[in-house]
Amino acid sequence: MGMTSTTMPEFGAGLWHFASYIDRYATDGYGAEKGTLAQIALAAEVDDLHYVDLNFPFTDGVSTSEVKDALKASSLKAIGVTPDIYMREWRKGAFTNPDPKLRISALDRMHAATEAAAELGAHYTKIWPGQDGWDYPFQVNHGDLWKLAKEGMKELASAHPDRKFAIEYKPREPRVKMTWDSAARSILGIQEIGLDNIGVLLDFGHSLYGGESPADAAQLLIDHGLLYGMDVNDNLRAWDDDLVVGTVHMTEIFEFFHTLRLNGWHGVWQLDQFPFREDPVDAANTSIRFLKALHRALDTLDVEGLRQAQERQDAMAAQRLVQDALLSSMGGSH
Amino acid sequence: MGMTSTTMPEFGAGLWHFASYIDRYATDGYGAEKGTLAQIALAAEVDDLHYVDLNFPFTDGVSTSEVKDALKASSLKAIGVTPDIYMREWRKGAFTNPDPKLRISALDRMHAATEAAAELGAHYTKIWPGQDGWDYPFQVNHGDLWKLAKEGMKELASAHPDRKFAIEYKPREPRVKMTWDSAARSILGIQEIGLDNIGVLLDFGHSLYGGESPADAAQLLIDHGLLYGMDVNDNLRAWDDDLVVGTVHMTEIFEFFHTLRLNGWHGVWQLDQFPFREDPVDAANTSIRFLKALHRALDTLDVEGLRQAQERQDAMAAQRLVQDALLSSMGGSH
Amino acid sequence: MGMTSTTMPEFGAGLWHFASYIDRYATDGYGAEKGTLAQIALAAEVDDLHYVDLNFPFTDGVSTSEVKDALKASSLKAIGVTPDIYMREWRKGAFTNPDPKLRISALDRMHAATEAAAELGAHYTKIWPGQDGWDYPFQVNHGDLWKLAKEGMKELASAHPDRKFAIEYKPREPRVKMTWDSAARSILGIQEIGLDNIGVLLDFGHSLYGGESPADAAQLLIDHGLLYGMDVNDNLRAWDDDLVVGTVHMTEIFEFFHTLRLNGWHGVWQLDQFPFREDPVDAANTSIRFLKALHRALDTLDVEGLRQAQERQDAMAAQRLVQDALLSSMGGSH
Amino acid sequence: MGMTSTTMPEFGAGLWHFASYIDRYATDGYGAEKGTLAQIALAAEVDDLHYVDLNFPFTDGVSTSEVKDALKASSLKAIGVTPDIYMREWRKGAFTNPDPKLRISALDRMHAATEAAAELGAHYTKIWPGQDGWDYPFQVNHGDLWKLAKEGMKELASAHPDRKFAIEYKPREPRVKMTWDSAARSILGIQEIGLDNIGVLLDFGHSLYGGESPADAAQLLIDHGLLYGMDVNDNLRAWDDDLVVGTVHMTEIFEFFHTLRLNGWHGVWQLDQFPFREDPVDAANTSIRFLKALHRALDTLDVEGLRQAQERQDAMAAQRLVQDALLSSMGGSH
Repeated sequence: MGMTSTTMPEFGAGLWHFASYIDRYATDGYGAEKGTLAQIALAAEVDDLHYVDLNFPFTDGVSTSEVKDALKASSLKAIGVTPDIYMREWRKGAFTNPDPKLRISALDRMHAATEAAAELGAHYTKIWPGQDGWDYPFQVNHGDLWKLAKEGMKELASAHPDRKFAIEYKPREPRVKMTWDSAARSILGIQEIGLDNIGVLLDFGHSLYGGESPADAAQLLIDHGLLYGMDVNDNLRAWDDDLVVGTVHMTEIFEFFHTLRLNGWHGVWQLDQFPFREDPVDAANTSIRFLKALHRALDTLDVEGLRQAQERQDAMAAQRLVQDALLSSMGGSH
Repeated sequence: MGMTSTTMPEFGAGLWHFASYIDRYATDGYGAEKGTLAQIALAAEVDDLHYVDLNFPFTDGVSTSEVKDALKASSLKAIGVTPDIYMREWRKGAFTNPDPKLRISALDRMHAATEAAAELGAHYTKIWPGQDGWDYPFQVNHGDLWKLAKEGMKELASAHPDRKFAIEYKPREPRVKMTWDSAARSILGIQEIGLDNIGVLLDFGHSLYGGESPADAAQLLIDHGLLYGMDVNDNLRAWDDDLVVGTVHMTEIFEFFHTLRLNGWHGVWQLDQFPFREDPVDAANTSIRFLKALHRALDTLDVEGLRQAQERQDAMAAQRLVQDALLSSMGGSH
Repeated sequence: MGMTSTTMPEFGAGLWHFASYIDRYATDGYGAEKGTLAQIALAAEVDDLHYVDLNFPFTDGVSTSEVKDALKASSLKAIGVTPDIYMREWRKGAFTNPDPKLRISALDRMHAATEAAAELGAHYTKIWPGQDGWDYPFQVNHGDLWKLAKEGMKELASAHPDRKFAIEYKPREPRVKMTWDSAARSILGIQEIGLDNIGVLLDFGHSLYGGESPADAAQLLIDHGLLYGMDVNDNLRAWDDDLVVGTVHMTEIFEFFHTLRLNGWHGVWQLDQFPFREDPVDAANTSIRFLKALHRALDTLDVEGLRQAQERQDAMAAQRLVQDALLSSMGGSH
Repeated sequence: MGMTSTTMPEFGAGLWHFASYIDRYATDGYGAEKGTLAQIALAAEVDDLHYVDLNFPFTDGVSTSEVKDALKASSLKAIGVTPDIYMREWRKGAFTNPDPKLRISALDRMHAATEAAAELGAHYTKIWPGQDGWDYPFQVNHGDLWKLAKEGMKELASAHPDRKFAIEYKPREPRVKMTWDSAARSILGIQEIGLDNIGVLLDFGHSLYGGESPADAAQLLIDHGLLYGMDVNDNLRAWDDDLVVGTVHMTEIFEFFHTLRLNGWHGVWQLDQFPFREDPVDAANTSIRFLKALHRALDTLDVEGLRQAQERQDAMAAQRLVQDALLSSMGGSH
């Protein structure tokens, strides 16, 4: 059984974890609006947070250098910048908008976000084209749509050869069906684009409710050298609930992190959660508290025993080893 | 085969069909905001719309009598009034809010909505407690929650013995799980409350993605004398997509209306749709165009042949009769 | 925090846990066929198994008294007897079969099973009418079907006033949709039947993939005095996978047992699992090992702190208490 | 609007459409067993069936040449041969079985099936590795599993360079998760294998309940030159119900065939259905009757109008055109 205690990973969060939320019903929002700087101030209150992924443009006319200063003052670093290419203007798509002018305006925003990402020293621009897809049968020509999705991504990434771009795939929402919807399709699209600065951000919840095993999806992306980043959360497997990590799928999130460790993947453990009705700092602390328990469980997991169980597909032996580690992970040490 | 052409039903729509929408991503909204009177003006543009269900309170300080006048001027009638007990204030619940003061404020709003409903001559107050439920395992004591849900409903309905109240059940959203979640549970709760002015509004889409057969749910509600109203739309069976009716589940919506006719249920055929990216008048017209085809199909359906097929559970014979009627319903007549 | 160590519950299993399986693809079966006595012999190998639920009729012409002897010799007791009213003969239904003769033959089998249950001293006859329902839209008249479902159940239970009957509801499979499909509908049907010897067996997995919270369903059944029995397993929320308990939904199974304890429900903790590709004894032992950890976690759970968190719907505080107990439950003691 | 009446396609069916079925409950089967020749005799009774896909090995010691004669006598042709690599022996996988000897025995069966396919003049060997995958989290090493899946497929196809192989992907069942699970992943795997005689058979139902748009999946496969075959059926989007085509998703199956026609794909329209409780000939005739209506609807669909609607993502205009064609397709002509 593993005995060594390894160094904790660095933790991160989408800065929107500290924003307020709105949905189609509570149209007055789940809390008072907060701007970019206020969100950074809240993020700084979390006990062990090192990185944030920032929506772009920043609110309230705040400049990138002001954001940079605020992050530095809060001992936070930018891991990514995420342009908001899913607002009203692009409600019928960013890369795949039927209107060429809106495709250009979406790209303009992505270019600007990429410049901000460079200025902030972020690892990548994260591209989440949530409005690219369709709602109704027969609404689009699927061949044309996929072509536009790839062409736009290619135009963006080829304009910034020294920067990295991480596509965050998702099965659906806000469109009833999204174009970049799975790990395999993302890899396929990236291969067809043929550039080496495009990868994938794997969202645990997107993978789970898309019917993938997140551990399997991570392995596939790593095998193609495309796992640029990841974030975690939880859901009930039918929707992107963005619940706090570990509240539903303890075993599968454990398998996900085990797979990352097996492959020597040592990136930031990021949160992508929407604590609609919770205090966001409390929710982040609760999340990281659980992730640290997971990390301790990884240290005690009998990896060699597990390997042998997997070699014969012995699910029961594997489960016992997993439960021994996981169900002892809070013992005494918290 | 049926030969008589019966009178078309009256059509209705939630007035929100003509509002603009927002969601957690496109936080600037899918279109410009429109107030109650502007929504009524749009509803009036639909070709064959007779009824609307109105959110309460009305926007922009418009009074109930102004709304009444606007409806009259537009030849529209109010079928229901729906208090917005799912706004920020009640994000942890209306009837089941943990804070007693917020349970009272929610009831206050429902009382006011009921008075408006009376003034408008609406058939019922529609109660959709979308925030009543929970998000996480272990978040609530389920016994207490269900008790609160019934007590609040009882307090409301007993205060207005001459008015009717229609509970609109839904499996989930915005809460990860809603308390009033199915036809059977709604009937159970209403029986425990023991008042005769509480019934159910069956939303076709809620029923479908909750795993019910909407036709079966309608039959169950009718058998208990509780089907106060219904509305239709469509989805992909995993979420309340509120798509335009008939765009995905033609056969099951046909079975639903067939069941209503068999039971002599002759209420308003209402739309509850969210045309995020569509013109709402165009969407309503397209919906009603389809519903009229369905109605023609009901007129030509070989009801006696179908009854015989069902007596032996002969699914293939039933399908052929259904397809004969449904797949001829646009023929020549549009 | 809880300090007392309470007595372990008694454990049980459907005897089919020790049978071999077949499905529509591996039509030669997942293992060699085993008769009733061979299954009992395997069940006796499990470390802490006290009860079994037996399919009826027994195989190979074995008599009830032979089964009784075999159970006694193995120190096993019968908790229930489950008639196989879902075989070829009743592929279009047992209670709801369109053919009156087949409704009678199904009832005959249930009567015989009830006599065997009495002879074995079982707590109840378990009724799982898996073929009662429909596959296609328009295949059945829903009103007639539900009437037959209740009438058949009433005829059965009224013929054995001194025996108990537990309906096991399930959303679907083998029919595309089952008639007794949820806790609420089962309660509703039982109320309409009006007999006091009919209750419900809650299957954790059925509840989960039917969109219920199993803890909430248990509370509802207990509140109506109808929770006659329960069994556990796991799945991916979309199908009745009958996986080994605790392998996917650790937190929700913990909430389920917490709810039972809160209500003072002290029945047998039963397994309903299909270890298609696993050794059944190993699978049962692995299951009970996990259930014992859960039981220890119940003993250490801070129930009062949890109650207070639930009173304010504080999901994060609740989660921390739950994780403290659950993630320490294997520590040192196994 | 389209005016020309095009030639009807040729229709086919999996020969198992005419077998009897079994599942994990009705273990005595849904009907009497029927051998290969009896199944062919039933297939011959269907009005417009031209092709069958045959399970291999044939039953009852029937030789390939006897099958060839029986097909000829029935005016049926073989489109594919499907080795049964999902029986007990390979319950833990065919290509990905943990036991190397069982991987070899599975390949042996596939080689033999390929020889039979050649002798019968079938277009391809269909490979459906239904047991390749996993059931539990942590059961397998995902990297190793995917490697085995590709290596086995490569070994098979490279041994028969003059034959074609069609992989039929499926999200799950009988394994809780299957390895070849989607169109995109199949394309990815085939690209990594690097042989030009491996393609894909797209099953409409698998695609639908896997969360794909079947029309989109077809387009993607065609764009890669990999759509070797397809079959149709229906389901409720959560399981491979293998219902009769057109009974639930009329619009999406229409979009699927529209996409095939747009791309000039003119293969056989095959049925993959499991009429558990229906007469198989009646079910096949009902299916083909519907498919002919769909074909007529394709002839009348206003393709140019639809193209224009899609160019602006005008879902409502598209729906009206689709309904005009689809809901007139039975008019007068049947």
